[in-house]
Amino acid sequence: MTTTATRPSIPAERFQQRLARACAATAEHSLDALLIGVGADLRYLTGYAAHESERLTMLVVGWAQKDAVLVVPRLEEPAARAGSHVDVRIETWSETETPTELVARLVLAQIHQHPRALKLGVSDRLWALHLLRLERALPGSAFESATPALRSLRMTKDAEEIELLRLAGAAADRVVEQIASGRLVGRTEADVAEEVHERLREEGHDVAQFAIVASGPNSASPHHGASDRVIEAGEPIVLDIGGSLDGYQSDTTRTLWVTGGDERNGPTEEFRHLFGVLLAAQQAATRAARPGVPAEAIDRAARDLIDAEGYGENFFHRTGHGIGLEGHEEPYLVAGNAEPIGTGMAFSIEPGIYLPGRYGARIEDIVVCGPDGAIVLNNASRELRVVAG
Amino acid sequence: MTTTATRPSIPAERFQQRLARACAATAEHSLDALLIGVGADLRYLTGYAAHESERLTMLVVGWAQKDAVLVVPRLEEPAARAGSHVDVRIETWSETETPTELVARLVLAQIHQHPRALKLGVSDRLWALHLLRLERALPGSAFESATPALRSLRMTKDAEEIELLRLAGAAADRVVEQIASGRLVGRTEADVAEEVHERLREEGHDVAQFAIVASGPNSASPHHGASDRVIEAGEPIVLDIGGSLDGYQSDTTRTLWVTGGDERNGPTEEFRHLFGVLLAAQQAATRAARPGVPAEAIDRAARDLIDAEGYGENFFHRTGHGIGLEGHEEPYLVAGNAEPIGTGMAFSIEPGIYLPGRYGARIEDIVVCGPDGAIVLNNASRELRVVAG
Repeated sequence: MTTTATRPSIPAERFQQRLARACAATAEHSLDALLIGVGADLRYLTGYAAHESERLTMLVVGWAQKDAVLVVPRLEEPAARAGSHVDVRIETWSETETPTELVARLVLAQIHQHPRALKLGVSDRLWALHLLRLERALPGSAFESATPALRSLRMTKDAEEIELLRLAGAAADRVVEQIASGRLVGRTEADVAEEVHERLREEGHDVAQFAIVASGPNSASPHHGASDRVIEAGEPIVLDIGGSLDGYQSDTTRTLWVTGGDERNGPTEEFRHLFGVLLAAQQAATRAARPGVPAEAIDRAARDLIDAEGYGENFFHRTGHGIGLEGHEEPYLVAGNAEPIGTGMAFSIEPGIYLPGRYGARIEDIVVCGPDGAIVLNNASRELRVVAG
Repeated sequence: MTTTATRPSIPAERFQQRLARACAATAEHSLDALLIGVGADLRYLTGYAAHESERLTMLVVGWAQKDAVLVVPRLEEPAARAGSHVDVRIETWSETETPTELVARLVLAQIHQHPRALKLGVSDRLWALHLLRLERALPGSAFESATPALRSLRMTKDAEEIELLRLAGAAADRVVEQIASGRLVGRTEADVAEEVHERLREEGHDVAQFAIVASGPNSASPHHGASDRVIEAGEPIVLDIGGSLDGYQSDTTRTLWVTGGDERNGPTEEFRHLFGVLLAAQQAATRAARPGVPAEAIDRAARDLIDAEGYGENFFHRTGHGIGLEGHEEPYLVAGNAEPIGTGMAFSIEPGIYLPGRYGARIEDIVVCGPDGAIVLNNASRELRVVAG
């Protein structure tokens, strides 16, 4: 099945508004320009989902919206015109030209009191290849991350973005249910991951991005991936999967325990206890997610419970990350991040407890902060799933 | 079907040799260290196919092999140990630490005459986010691309790499044959692209990377992608597809003409002529690819023929790019690149002719330079395929 028919589309005027706000933010942050390479920032501001390349594509954003320019390789001009939903001038460069010099000329043309040292914000995922060339083309200029200027726009999702995240989340939930009710014992992790990829697409994702299938001792490795290990009866599986739908990401984790149909292969008492602590922590963090609380307070809510049960050393990653056009984006739920959570922010809540070399568990939901607290986008059962597998 | 069983694996000692050569190249290029982020360079040197992330993973390579350190997020330590095939020290950082400061300390520890301004080579795909932080952590240091130091290693493929490229190319060829012999008229480009993705995986690719399905006027856009346009009888389709197999890429293009089964919908005389010129140019470039010739001479061989027929303005991209662990890598076959082609270099040969708003064509093979000239890895027929579709 596909959910294409019910997908909201982001209206063209929204891109114009976003670009206007980016121009205002450039001025507010005392930047002379934003230099936005291929990636989520470019897609957010223009709709253009360009592919990453050694050939530079770059949106130059200054203080005036009319001055915004999209620099693209000549051979991608038709693709850029078709892909961009915003009214922006397009400048092309040919294969024997140096595009960073074109960008430098465009930036300098927007500055009235030149020549002087500029302050320029670059998108976080711009390749070093391109940044190093920009630094050479604009000597004496100070380069910094564009994210402080763009983060408040990107973090606060509008209605269509939330709906796309909801659709992606519901699709991922269906895949979790399908995998949990299917055969697992005797298969390799990689084989199950392959099935996850296929099902993510069948359920409406455009791209299946990742499938962690971490069985037995591998479940103690948070970013395990999927190996040739054969799943055995009597062990846990951490299933952490996600894809994207019109660019918007899903990301959910559930922990299963496979018995092979023999009740004697059920979870150990220790694992049941550990899982109970984890679930309580995940729920406490979800309850803590309300407008105005600092991001680190949500992390703290999960961590306090886990610490109190003696598993503090076994929860060695942050509690969550923002999500949208990127799988990981601001806000990060981590100690030290005092960013106040606001209505419309979307992020994961995913504590984990890992006993190295033995086993581990994680529970992850994507939530959107509503006026009264977290609106949870993943609704497959969070309980420890004891299945025959 | 899958070709897994016949895949060569890259032996562990090869990674040790590569790392030793990278250390030697660091010294030869008067660099104090190479700072290698996630991507093809890291995979080439260590075997570790890490995923790109805002969490820094970085291989620090100095002059002595024993000093190489792989910096990884703590939660990815088990994945890094499992994924790395080289004997290298692993240092982890926790979620509340600043990994670029750890990298700075490691770099400074390797330098005997500190403090002084360092010269550091960074991998081309390192995110600006990380490079900007490194620049702050190592003030006064000069950063440049690591590619001049690593290019001669990366460009010259060894036997296993060539075999993986050959397997990937043969798999892509089978997909081309399947698509060319299937139904096309009445389907959207996006639907055909979806089929290409599925078939690339069925034929042995681990990842289906891209499928350009450019029909009718879209065939005049070299990097079109695949749209909702419905393919009609009596028009060309440029099919440019690729994926990866153990990280090694395929990339091949063939041009079809669909008639819908009615001979009256065959190619125009103009298109047949254009295509004949293109095929001659592609073959001339392939013949020109021999050890010792400059990369730009291969471009020139294709371009001279196309220029002579008056299509010079209609061939507005380079003739090719290197290929290996990256879809596009050195050497680039472009005017201005005097790099001499050497035995073991792998690259595409892909001239195109595009009449804007009307139609276009491209033919692309991956070749490896052997001692006597190009060894062609794509062997599906290069002729204009007139099919019912």
